[in-house]
Amino acid sequence: VTVEDQLKTYGIAIDSRLDNLLTVESSFPSELISAMRYACLSSGKRLRPALCLAACEAVGGRTEDALDAACAIEMVHSFSLIHDDLPALDDDDLRRGRPTCHIEFGEAIAILAGDGLFSMAFETVSRPNGLLSDAIQLRCVRLLSGSTGLSGLVSGEAADILAEGKPTDLAALEAIHSRKTGALIRASCEIGAVIGTHDESQIEAMREYGEMVGVAFQIADDILDETSTKEHLGKTAGADQTRMKATYPRLMGIEASQAKANEHAQAAISKLKKLKGPVEFLENLARFTVSRTR
Amino acid sequence: VTVEDQLKTYGIAIDSRLDNLLTVESSFPSELISAMRYACLSSGKRLRPALCLAACEAVGGRTEDALDAACAIEMVHSFSLIHDDLPALDDDDLRRGRPTCHIEFGEAIAILAGDGLFSMAFETVSRPNGLLSDAIQLRCVRLLSGSTGLSGLVSGEAADILAEGKPTDLAALEAIHSRKTGALIRASCEIGAVIGTHDESQIEAMREYGEMVGVAFQIADDILDETSTKEHLGKTAGADQTRMKATYPRLMGIEASQAKANEHAQAAISKLKKLKGPVEFLENLARFTVSRTR
Repeated sequence: VTVEDQLKTYGIAIDSRLDNLLTVESSFPSELISAMRYACLSSGKRLRPALCLAACEAVGGRTEDALDAACAIEMVHSFSLIHDDLPALDDDDLRRGRPTCHIEFGEAIAILAGDGLFSMAFETVSRPNGLLSDAIQLRCVRLLSGSTGLSGLVSGEAADILAEGKPTDLAALEAIHSRKTGALIRASCEIGAVIGTHDESQIEAMREYGEMVGVAFQIADDILDETSTKEHLGKTAGADQTRMKATYPRLMGIEASQAKANEHAQAAISKLKKLKGPVEFLENLARFTVSRTR
Repeated sequence: VTVEDQLKTYGIAIDSRLDNLLTVESSFPSELISAMRYACLSSGKRLRPALCLAACEAVGGRTEDALDAACAIEMVHSFSLIHDDLPALDDDDLRRGRPTCHIEFGEAIAILAGDGLFSMAFETVSRPNGLLSDAIQLRCVRLLSGSTGLSGLVSGEAADILAEGKPTDLAALEAIHSRKTGALIRASCEIGAVIGTHDESQIEAMREYGEMVGVAFQIADDILDETSTKEHLGKTAGADQTRMKATYPRLMGIEASQAKANEHAQAAISKLKKLKGPVEFLENLARFTVSRTR
């Protein structure tokens, strides 16, 4: 099975469950629901929820146990994209090849749709589902909130915005990315592992895999932003450059960036040795992450 | 003890713990932290966290067990105020007698400060504290997320904005308020009760008290908005009228609104009979809610 095919298989399960979770009673404001569905059910890569499901399998667990948590992770990701794209932040008009949420629904509803998805993520991960113990669900809540707040993406986005136009060195760039992108990718792997096993050494290995893959992914993303056209990327290409944002290629050059991405992908793969379930997808995904062209 | 004095006593405990929770390591973006502290540590009434602490006591529990949850509730409340005040939503410049968060820190940081407080609320309510069982903490997560998402304040705010300038009847107004203000007040009482007792009938009574007090509070707030001056209110007075928002006084007149508020306060008080702890404060608070002049 190729990475793309496996991503599609995971994607179908995730989209179907997300569609279900976002099908709600008619008394809720329909424009808000439409905006939440628009942002969350669009054609993203589903990388984070797929990592969550794959991590659960890789430690010997069942993917169905991790499906709700995977959807919650995608909701958090969608929330962060909606808010990052707002005029006051990155001011992006295009995302995944379509108008961003605030272009389509207006700023007020976009802000609230983000908030609604964020809230729904915690409802989803804490809802009694007959599959997980209270202790595991609570640990998922902790991992999810820990990866989004001050130790995670909100802090990373703030640091990113505050650093705009200022000279940034590699250490500062890595600190920003570790929070802005890395934290949720790491949490996706750890949450899947926590759901799939009680073995803390496997959980730790999955967390480390997530750490490494997150860095590889971010470097690859930076390279793509420099080299792609708008048509390929589905979002405004070269946007980082226009905004004077530091990126790996701008600090290290494209070749050294690619080498660094490859190293991290290899380091990620090396963490998989400790796992007791199937790891082929995670292995291939690490390689795919640094070789993708879009 | 007067309501004001008891509110002050609760307020001191809450502010001190909030200050503590919002004192974080220096690697986090300082402007983001400043904005979160500005919004959350300002001189609010602390009504919701006080309700949480008082509810816990009223069912026979210890306030210290509910302190973190009370702080989480205030974080959620602050998050919702920051986002509601944004230019794209209610566009308010003044809150609690001071410039709103986006006036003081700019829109980007204000949006992220709201997100950061929302996330920190879930970190706070799910953190191991040696006081509460996993089951109780998880139930608090459910109540908190349930009161903020589609069944709660995000949905209420969206409905409120979408209804602006359109004819609204009493049923629609009540539906909006039940979510926008009612849900979190109700949850504050229920969370306090869940932490304080395992007795479901007491928990249900506290939930019903919260329901009734929430309605009384909202009607009283609407009346204040019509009758107060900016100096008294600490926020832009008459703002609802300027925005053509429906309010109780505009739909029923001031006298009938006041009568309705009083009825709900009385109904709230009647729910307290079932409780096994001290209820004097909650009784007085219900009366205070409908008689306050600011």
